[in-house]
Amino acid sequence: MSRHSRGTSKERVVGGLHPVRELLRSGQTVTSVLVAETRDRGAVLDDILELARAADVTVEQVDRRDLDARAVGLVHQGVLALAPPFSYTSLAGVVASASDHGEDPFLVALDGVTDPHNLGSIARSAEAVGVHGLVVPQRRSAAVTPTVEKSAAGALAYLPVVQVVNLVRALQELRDAGVWSIGLDEQASHELAGVALASEPCVLVVGGEGGGLSRLTRDRCDALARLPMRGRVASLNASVAAAVALYELRRLRG
Amino acid sequence: MSRHSRGTSKERVVGGLHPVRELLRSGQTVTSVLVAETRDRGAVLDDILELARAADVTVEQVDRRDLDARAVGLVHQGVLALAPPFSYTSLAGVVASASDHGEDPFLVALDGVTDPHNLGSIARSAEAVGVHGLVVPQRRSAAVTPTVEKSAAGALAYLPVVQVVNLVRALQELRDAGVWSIGLDEQASHELAGVALASEPCVLVVGGEGGGLSRLTRDRCDALARLPMRGRVASLNASVAAAVALYELRRLRG
Repeated sequence: MSRHSRGTSKERVVGGLHPVRELLRSGQTVTSVLVAETRDRGAVLDDILELARAADVTVEQVDRRDLDARAVGLVHQGVLALAPPFSYTSLAGVVASASDHGEDPFLVALDGVTDPHNLGSIARSAEAVGVHGLVVPQRRSAAVTPTVEKSAAGALAYLPVVQVVNLVRALQELRDAGVWSIGLDEQASHELAGVALASEPCVLVVGGEGGGLSRLTRDRCDALARLPMRGRVASLNASVAAAVALYELRRLRG
Repeated sequence: MSRHSRGTSKERVVGGLHPVRELLRSGQTVTSVLVAETRDRGAVLDDILELARAADVTVEQVDRRDLDARAVGLVHQGVLALAPPFSYTSLAGVVASASDHGEDPFLVALDGVTDPHNLGSIARSAEAVGVHGLVVPQRRSAAVTPTVEKSAAGALAYLPVVQVVNLVRALQELRDAGVWSIGLDEQASHELAGVALASEPCVLVVGGEGGGLSRLTRDRCDALARLPMRGRVASLNASVAAAVALYELRRLRG
């Protein structure tokens, strides 16, 4: 057993070339970087070693089996970063940071997205689109785990994530701060492009793969909107629907 | 061993509630439907049983372990359909069917998308957007397998798929038929919305998760375009990028 096994279960484990590089680039605290002895060099790994050196982060060559044991099932590509627990942000902090940048708040909230790959993929899309924050409930939802960080491909090094006890209350809080809720709902009568609130301060609310938005969440939304569907199956994967809607909102917001 | 084990490896195995329902709905030939004895009833299963009855398709209750054995690793939700091998379409057939509908051809082609979940997800998005066909190369690409059909959530019951020996030659063939190739490329100087060809007969060409488009493919494209990126990581999952680009093209085509 290496000395790394002392880490608590709350330790942040980030695996994979891009996620580890972005974590180091973001300037967040990294405890150490573990590289498999058998790992080939390459441009991204070179970046990682250089960033670690610059930040005085220990890099340790370890046996691949040790790495596998630390990575608990993660596809780590021979590289892991260990860091203090993932830091969630507050709702007020996200809204304030949007204002600090002179921008209208633009968030995405998830209702019942339990698949960690979907959560990671949505985080990646949200970061690419430039949203100010991602809101996830504590229950009936995936949290930020190593699998989620891997699927997010580095986006969680930058994207603020808010974990809330009660999503409906959080949407109300946002409403009180001037942020409208737009729920993505296949049954909605309007397409997203026809929703006037799209260009206002807003949070896009996306349901899980199975049942979409819960009734309480749907009732709390200020508007419901759907994506245009031309096919006969007429449904999209939750993470794809979220990405398409976020891009559409970004376009409508100019 | 049940008598079903005689099936050849080319037999089409479609698993999961939605894929099986859509296969039956599409009117394609289904050899038989297998339902796990332990499977609970529900609206979708009721649809399946009704559709099978109407089409004179045998429904057999089987032990879940038999189903698992037939499903080779597939998440089948207790339902499998067995059918003749998946039918690929020809390039000329796709172009002709667009004309038959009085529409400009709109296709998507994949270059090096090897992950079956990505291929399935792209097929699902392509069907939802209403493209006329999906083009995949025989090599360096996933083919339509049970895993792909599951990820496509029923879309492959309707979406024409063309398997080509040589993608560059296929794009040239499309060009000769008046269909322009637009390659999705992170390094492109224009965003998709600024590409004039977007409203012409066109095929969107999407590269794999790793390296994007191959050089030969990129050289053959009539235009290259990127998606807008606002974040610091600035990359999207291949299937998400394809979906966002397809939606954007659909919008630009009006």
